[in-house]
This record gives sequence, C-alpha cells and structure tokens, in this order.
Amino acid sequence: MTSAHAFAPGTVANLGPGLDILGLALEGVGDEVRVSRSPAAGLTVEVLGAEEIPLDPTRNTAAIAAAEVRRRAGVEGEGLSIQIRKGLPLAGGQGGSAASAAAAAVATDALLRARLSREDLLEACLVAEEAVAGRHADNAAAALYGGVVLVRSLDPIDVLRLPYPRGLRIVLARPAQRLATERARAALPATLSREIALAQAAQVGALVAALAAGDFELLARSVEDRIAEPSREPLLPGFAEAKRAALKAGACGCSISGAGPSAFAFARDEESGERIAEAMVKAYRAKGIEAQARVFAIDESGARVIAKHD
Amino acid sequence: MTSAHAFAPGTVANLGPGLDILGLALEGVGDEVRVSRSPAAGLTVEVLGAEEIPLDPTRNTAAIAAAEVRRRAGVEGEGLSIQIRKGLPLAGGQGGSAASAAAAAVATDALLRARLSREDLLEACLVAEEAVAGRHADNAAAALYGGVVLVRSLDPIDVLRLPYPRGLRIVLARPAQRLATERARAALPATLSREIALAQAAQVGALVAALAAGDFELLARSVEDRIAEPSREPLLPGFAEAKRAALKAGACGCSISGAGPSAFAFARDEESGERIAEAMVKAYRAKGIEAQARVFAIDESGARVIAKHD
Repeated sequence: MTSAHAFAPGTVANLGPGLDILGLALEGVGDEVRVSRSPAAGLTVEVLGAEEIPLDPTRNTAAIAAAEVRRRAGVEGEGLSIQIRKGLPLAGGQGGSAASAAAAAVATDALLRARLSREDLLEACLVAEEAVAGRHADNAAAALYGGVVLVRSLDPIDVLRLPYPRGLRIVLARPAQRLATERARAALPATLSREIALAQAAQVGALVAALAAGDFELLARSVEDRIAEPSREPLLPGFAEAKRAALKAGACGCSISGAGPSAFAFARDEESGERIAEAMVKAYRAKGIEAQARVFAIDESGARVIAKHD
Repeated sequence: MTSAHAFAPGTVANLGPGLDILGLALEGVGDEVRVSRSPAAGLTVEVLGAEEIPLDPTRNTAAIAAAEVRRRAGVEGEGLSIQIRKGLPLAGGQGGSAASAAAAAVATDALLRARLSREDLLEACLVAEEAVAGRHADNAAAALYGGVVLVRSLDPIDVLRLPYPRGLRIVLARPAQRLATERARAALPATLSREIALAQAAQVGALVAALAAGDFELLARSVEDRIAEPSREPLLPGFAEAKRAALKAGACGCSISGAGPSAFAFARDEESGERIAEAMVKAYRAKGIEAQARVFAIDESGARVIAKHD
C-alpha cells in the first residue's frame, strides 16, 4: 500500500457537566487525512482548506498521532507524507485537532498494517492532544470511537460507548468569535469545593441515566455545568443569551461545546433542532455577533478508512 | 385513625464514588416506627431495641421528620407519640437515622392523612438528617424511595431511580468498630483538585452506565472513590484488608458503606455474595477484628405503611 485515506468526525466535548470526560461525534462533518509512504525519512505535512494549522510535525496533531502510531508499529524509519483536508474550523469547539489526529492515526495504522487496538490508537491521539490542548480524551475518544462516549479512565484507557435515544439531535451554533483552547483551559479553576465537585458528579450520573432511558426532561435538567461554564462564559459574549433562547425554543440542555466558542444544545428531534438553531442564531445577532447554526445527528462509526491506494 | 405503623429499609450510601449522591435500599432489614395520636400536645419518643438513641424530640431523627410532616400538614397543635423499633445499628453505616426518619415521615403522613408528595416527605427526612449528619439525602432518598437512587439535586429535590441488574446483591460486612458520622464527615476534604473531581464524576457516570447495562466488569472498575475512601480508610482498621479479600473473592467493587464503619461489596449473584461475605469476615478476623457479614437483595419498595389502627 502506498497511501491510506481516513475520515474522522467533528465532536462536541464536555456536554455540559462532563468536562474532559463526556463527548459525542457529529455526523456529516469532519477532517480527512491521507497518509502516504514517502522516500524521504521523517514526516511532512500539507494542509488543505485551512490556514494557521501548524505544518511543523511536532506541533501538528495529525503528524504527532501518525508518528506515534508509526513508533508503536515499530517502523520509525518509515518516511510519511501527511495531507490534511480540514472540514472543521480551527479553535471552533468542534474538536478539529482531535479529528485530524484520529483520522491520521487510523490512516497510518491501515497504511502500515499495524493493526493497533482502538485503545492504542486513542493513546496516539492523546499524545497529540497533549501537545496542543492538554491530556484529555473527550474529543479524541468521540472522534475515534463515534457515538456518545464517557472517558472513565485515561490510565489505563477505559472509554465507554453510552446508549442514547435514536432521535437525539445536536444543535451547534458557531458565533464569529475566536477563543484559543489554551485561554479557555487557563480559565478553569484548579481546585473546587467539595459541594461543587459532588453536584457536578451528580449531573454526570443523571446525564448518563437520561441518555440510557431516553428521558429528555431529565436530560434538560442534567446539562448543568458548575465548573467550566461559569469560568468560560465571561469570555464568550452572546453565549448566555443564545443559551436562554435555545432553552426557550425547547432545547434539552445547552452549554459550551468543548472549550468554545461554539455552543451546543440537545434537541429531541430534527424539527425541534431547527427551531433551536434559528433561535440561537437570532440571539447572537441581537447582540451584534454573526453566527451560524446547524443540526447534527450523531456519527455512529467514528474515524474510518475511506480509501486505500496500492 | 389513632396510629400508623411504618417500616423503612436500611441503606448503603455513597456506593463508592457517589459520596452524598448515590444510595440503595437493603431488603429485609430496617427500622419500624409507630406514630400515635396523643392527648398531650408536642412529641414524645420511645425507642425499643437500642440504647443511645436520643429521646429528645429535637435530636431524634424520627421525631424531627414526624414534626416536619405535621407542620407541612398544617396541624402543628396535634400531639404525637412516636415508638421506634430499631432493626438497624447505631452508627453502623446502614442509614439507621435515615430509616427511622423515613418510617416516621411515612407513618405520620398516613396518620394525619396529609398525602404529602414523596419529595415533601424526603424534605422532612432531610430536615432530620441535617440535624444529625449534614444535609445529604443519599440514605434518606434510598430509604424512602427504595431501589438504587441518584440524588441529582437537593434544591429542588430531584431523585432518580436507577435501573440495575436483577441478580445484583450487596454484601455488607460489619466490623465490631464504631465510627461516629460526625468524625467520618470531618475527615472529608473541603476542597478538591479539579483532576480528582473530574475523575470522581467519571466513575459516577460509569457506575450508572454499568448498572443500566448490567455490566458487572464495568461496575467493578467504577467503584473507585478518590474523595471519601482515602480520607476515611485510616479511621477504619481492617477495611483495606477486607476490601482486598472481597475483590479477590469476586466482588464487583467494594468500598465503605456510608460514613462507615461497615464495608459493602457488589456481587453478581447470591452465591458469589456468600463467598465474598465469608472472605471479608475472615480478613477482618485476621486483623483481630470481630465482624459479621450478610448478603442482601435490593429493597424495591422503600418506606411503607405496614399497619393502621382506628
């Protein structure tokens, strides 16, 4: 094989109370990565469809994940050329860095016929995420596994696929703002009161129960984040208004998508999702902030090879 | 009606990671409370089967809960006589104070034909728990509702009944130790690192998912408490050894029951439960600590009226 081409979906991390531990994959949007053998040793990176993505292989998540898979496959001398086609925005809160890493990991694994376990591939993505956004796997696990995931443990890696109701839709509203992940992470409190920690744990438990039971009322009550949202909201003008509008339009919970600036809302079906999307965009615009919103189903498959070339 | 007689089951709180938010009710063990109309105003308390239970109605959880139900029923002038038959040990980590409160609340509600909602009855139990053990509802909600409960919120009260696998059994090992709830609570850290808080939340989510899916392997991995157990273990000689023995004997997780000193373990069936119980008792005895252990199914009904007298 001379090259392998993979796709990985965009993701929403946190899902409200699940900071660093809950995530889900979005259907119909993501990054593509083609990994090819190259006569020159080392790694080269090319990016299509986006500027500002670092081409330095030690700072590019796709390249870091590919290098890590190559290392685990035991063929570190192999030269690889990596071509990334970004479908996801930079710093948009849709897990763009994780999607590139997941697609690169899967493509490299196929190209090198390494047949690493999914946990090993996630470990490779984590090495990449760590270099740009801290060691957390909520985006990477969702991008790699698909579905709705709970990261129970990173050491050892233990990721659960959670059951969820079929009709569930995700509204993603993307204001014309930038919020660097580093800045969003720096806003998080390093310590928490026991009361807040336990309340947050209760919401995570309730959210898992709500998804398993298909209980949309409970889901709405469980999307309550007392750790990340209060510290990041001041950095996100318009978010509070968009959230209020989403809930009023019938959203089953609304919070920040990952480290922001995108906001997400749960909807019980496509139609309700469309109403929520419209309400959120209107609320941002009323604050003078241009915004776009879209309704997504959940991507069940996660990162996958879409073509191989001999 | 001149008197009403109610029963409420013993409970296990915390269930590992669910400090103050998870609890379950034990079948076949609990407290009984008979509430009778009395010609004298006020409340009188009588306790059968236990010493050291305060008879002062402002310090007795059954009396506090009864008074609170009476207040909510709008008949504060009504004299009540409360007779408690303790089936649960004092400070044993089996929710004795909560069971007495729950039985008293249900009996008083029936006697006064108050027809309070379950949330109102829980609020009455919470007032009682607050007076002796702090405002947390994991024992009280399990005693009142039965089953396995998650306390999503106290304000407003929002308690979920969680699905769990039919075969699930609870082993409760009771060493001949005393640990006052106050002392056990004082050992808890007031603040936590974000890392520990998020890890704990992940275990709660995983535990809920494990119970819903009947996944005993996952259940075993999820019963991991990084907040209460590390701070209370030093107060509980023999616990670490009993836990090791339980896990070796096939327990699907083992931790402290409520504020201790009892330890609980999850078992996948009755037979496995018996083996675990034996192993835990043996481990305590090897440390020179007398202990008893018993295998319980889960009480599905919670607090209930068992007799009314005209």
